[in-house]
Amino acid sequence: MFSVTVRDHMMIAHSFRGEVFGPAQRLHGATFVVDVTFRGPELDVDDILVDIGLATQHVHEVVGALSYRNLDDEPAFEGVNTSTEVLARTVADRVAERVRAGDLGGAGDRVTALVVTLHESHVAWASYECDL
Amino acid sequence: MFSVTVRDHMMIAHSFRGEVFGPAQRLHGATFVVDVTFRGPELDVDDILVDIGLATQHVHEVVGALSYRNLDDEPAFEGVNTSTEVLARTVADRVAERVRAGDLGGAGDRVTALVVTLHESHVAWASYECDL
Amino acid sequence: MFSVTVRDHMMIAHSFRGEVFGPAQRLHGATFVVDVTFRGPELDVDDILVDIGLATQHVHEVVGALSYRNLDDEPAFEGVNTSTEVLARTVADRVAERVRAGDLGGAGDRVTALVVTLHESHVAWASYECDL
Amino acid sequence: MFSVTVRDHMMIAHSFRGEVFGPAQRLHGATFVVDVTFRGPELDVDDILVDIGLATQHVHEVVGALSYRNLDDEPAFEGVNTSTEVLARTVADRVAERVRAGDLGGAGDRVTALVVTLHESHVAWASYECDL
Amino acid sequence: MFSVTVRDHMMIAHSFRGEVFGPAQRLHGATFVVDVTFRGPELDVDDILVDIGLATQHVHEVVGALSYRNLDDEPAFEGVNTSTEVLARTVADRVAERVRAGDLGGAGDRVTALVVTLHESHVAWASYECDL
Amino acid sequence: MFSVTVRDHMMIAHSFRGEVFGPAQRLHGATFVVDVTFRGPELDVDDILVDIGLATQHVHEVVGALSYRNLDDEPAFEGVNTSTEVLARTVADRVAERVRAGDLGGAGDRVTALVVTLHESHVAWASYECDL
Repeated sequence: MFSVTVRDHMMIAHSFRGEVFGPAQRLHGATFVVDVTFRGPELDVDDILVDIGLATQHVHEVVGALSYRNLDDEPAFEGVNTSTEVLARTVADRVAERVRAGDLGGAGDRVTALVVTLHESHVAWASYECDL
Repeated sequence: MFSVTVRDHMMIAHSFRGEVFGPAQRLHGATFVVDVTFRGPELDVDDILVDIGLATQHVHEVVGALSYRNLDDEPAFEGVNTSTEVLARTVADRVAERVRAGDLGGAGDRVTALVVTLHESHVAWASYECDL
Repeated sequence: MFSVTVRDHMMIAHSFRGEVFGPAQRLHGATFVVDVTFRGPELDVDDILVDIGLATQHVHEVVGALSYRNLDDEPAFEGVNTSTEVLARTVADRVAERVRAGDLGGAGDRVTALVVTLHESHVAWASYECDL
Repeated sequence: MFSVTVRDHMMIAHSFRGEVFGPAQRLHGATFVVDVTFRGPELDVDDILVDIGLATQHVHEVVGALSYRNLDDEPAFEGVNTSTEVLARTVADRVAERVRAGDLGGAGDRVTALVVTLHESHVAWASYECDL
Repeated sequence: MFSVTVRDHMMIAHSFRGEVFGPAQRLHGATFVVDVTFRGPELDVDDILVDIGLATQHVHEVVGALSYRNLDDEPAFEGVNTSTEVLARTVADRVAERVRAGDLGGAGDRVTALVVTLHESHVAWASYECDL
Repeated sequence: MFSVTVRDHMMIAHSFRGEVFGPAQRLHGATFVVDVTFRGPELDVDDILVDIGLATQHVHEVVGALSYRNLDDEPAFEGVNTSTEVLARTVADRVAERVRAGDLGGAGDRVTALVVTLHESHVAWASYECDL
């Protein structure tokens, strides 16, 4: 099994609803360093799993669509806490859509799973993984 | 599948029995940077897998109970080498106990596996993973 | 010359005024990983420059007073952009005050300079350094 | 399940064939920071999965045999692009051979899988994992 | 004194002349993770030292002009070993030129020094610093 | 001004005398990731500041002479707390001696200062710098 990971980041504001969040119920923010991992059992005729240029570009677009925003105002997150877990799943879902749509070239046929990790600080991070 | 990781560290002295350990048979020590990963397939009503505040607190207690000690003198490790592998398992077992006891709130029902990684230097680390 | 550094972090929301900031004029946020370095030419009778326990505690208090907040609403930053540079200076000024007030014990006599670095992502950071 | 990882690095020149590689079709190079992970369900009588000294030595030999070379001239890679994925598999195959041959001592019986990760920069890396 | 750093990277091939270099006399390569630090005593009216967007863009152009190349063939390095030290100075000189030319906006007046660090692996790096 | 840094590590046991150290008065230990920086204004005829091979070897010997030991038993540290600051100075003094003795070749003439940083964990480190 092969995997290829590219890293990007986003900077967002948000707040959480629920007593469990303590002071994080206030409006605050985060830098998320985002690692997107593509997994698959075979390489293509060029001896790669994904075109890392295309992967970088599409991850950047997906992450960019969330960055420099107050996620409390984004319709996509209405009624849901934008926890690190939820955001990891959101990034994974949106990258998966592009892989399936053929935006990453032949990777659409070879990539069988994604793992997205969001680092919220040097001491905490969360991941979401899904099959394609 | 979701996962959430929190990082802490401990500083311990110990020695190893067995020729395979070479100079590490002498009394020496280590800083272990400890990553505890909680895994589970579903989020709770607050859209999180674990309360990261509770997770941080309990990992800190488990790691703190080992830190600033000479592990050669700890009854818990009598007759066993406190290798990085063994200490990763020890931390995992002790965190697992707390998860099962409900100390991390509803995470006890949602967390299905733990992975504990102990970094002993910038060039070596070991992990132990177990189902809950 | 000796130096001792402790690391902490804060998570804040803010926006910037000025066209130079582009999309960062919108309300967004950041995790700042904060490194506070104490510098001085001599050690004390205990062979240390600062009591790292006290240093960690006071840095945590200074950083905590900024964290989980929307800095746009903080009177301390009225009329100023809370750029990474400005926040590094703010943390340095507040830690310096505590060092001078004797909150870090004898370090008040030995620490001659501070350097504060705020990492806003894996690809950008800023520092402020000042003599005491 | 236990795992133990050791880190080394290699510095190589190479070029790629295929339009998908863009400017990387030109002769260029890379530092690969190499992480080799040994996995297995049980520890030996010394309470370790692998002799980390032996693991470090053999990984260093495998990595060293590729380093300070132009991989375009290496017969082992004739007709194949030395992508990060391919090199991760090469390192894994060569370490696996040594594990199976008993070069890492009893680890040959206990190690059931390998994962090799090659970091080509701070924003991209690739892995290959295989059962033994 | 303030400083702002942005990180980028380049991937190059090269060889060294001189017995001191041992196996690195052969054609090989490196990924250099490049940190460019701008230093200056004062912030501008927007409360920043440099426009981080412009800084990122110009560092990327300077680094990109070296990347995906065999430096042995570059006229700019004729008769000189492209050691990490030399390449750090080259990047610094080229960024300095742009700062002086006003390419980074008002930073040309405020930035008084540059530090460029090139990381060639996880265990070795080199820097060059110069006044403007 | 140029600088070149090489990284190594050591694993030691020790205890501290003095109430300021709290639980660290007990016998415990640490991994110190050691960064040794050589600084100087000029390069040699090979376009380098130091022979990085020689630098790596001598740093490894200096660090190795401290590693896998209980520093409480080392005559060199009698009557002194082996704080991170003290150990940084010890490593710097011992490397400086070798530079002055010509062990690092021509670097003895070109290196004008050393900086040694010891990372004791992911959240704390200390440095010592001295002129040669």
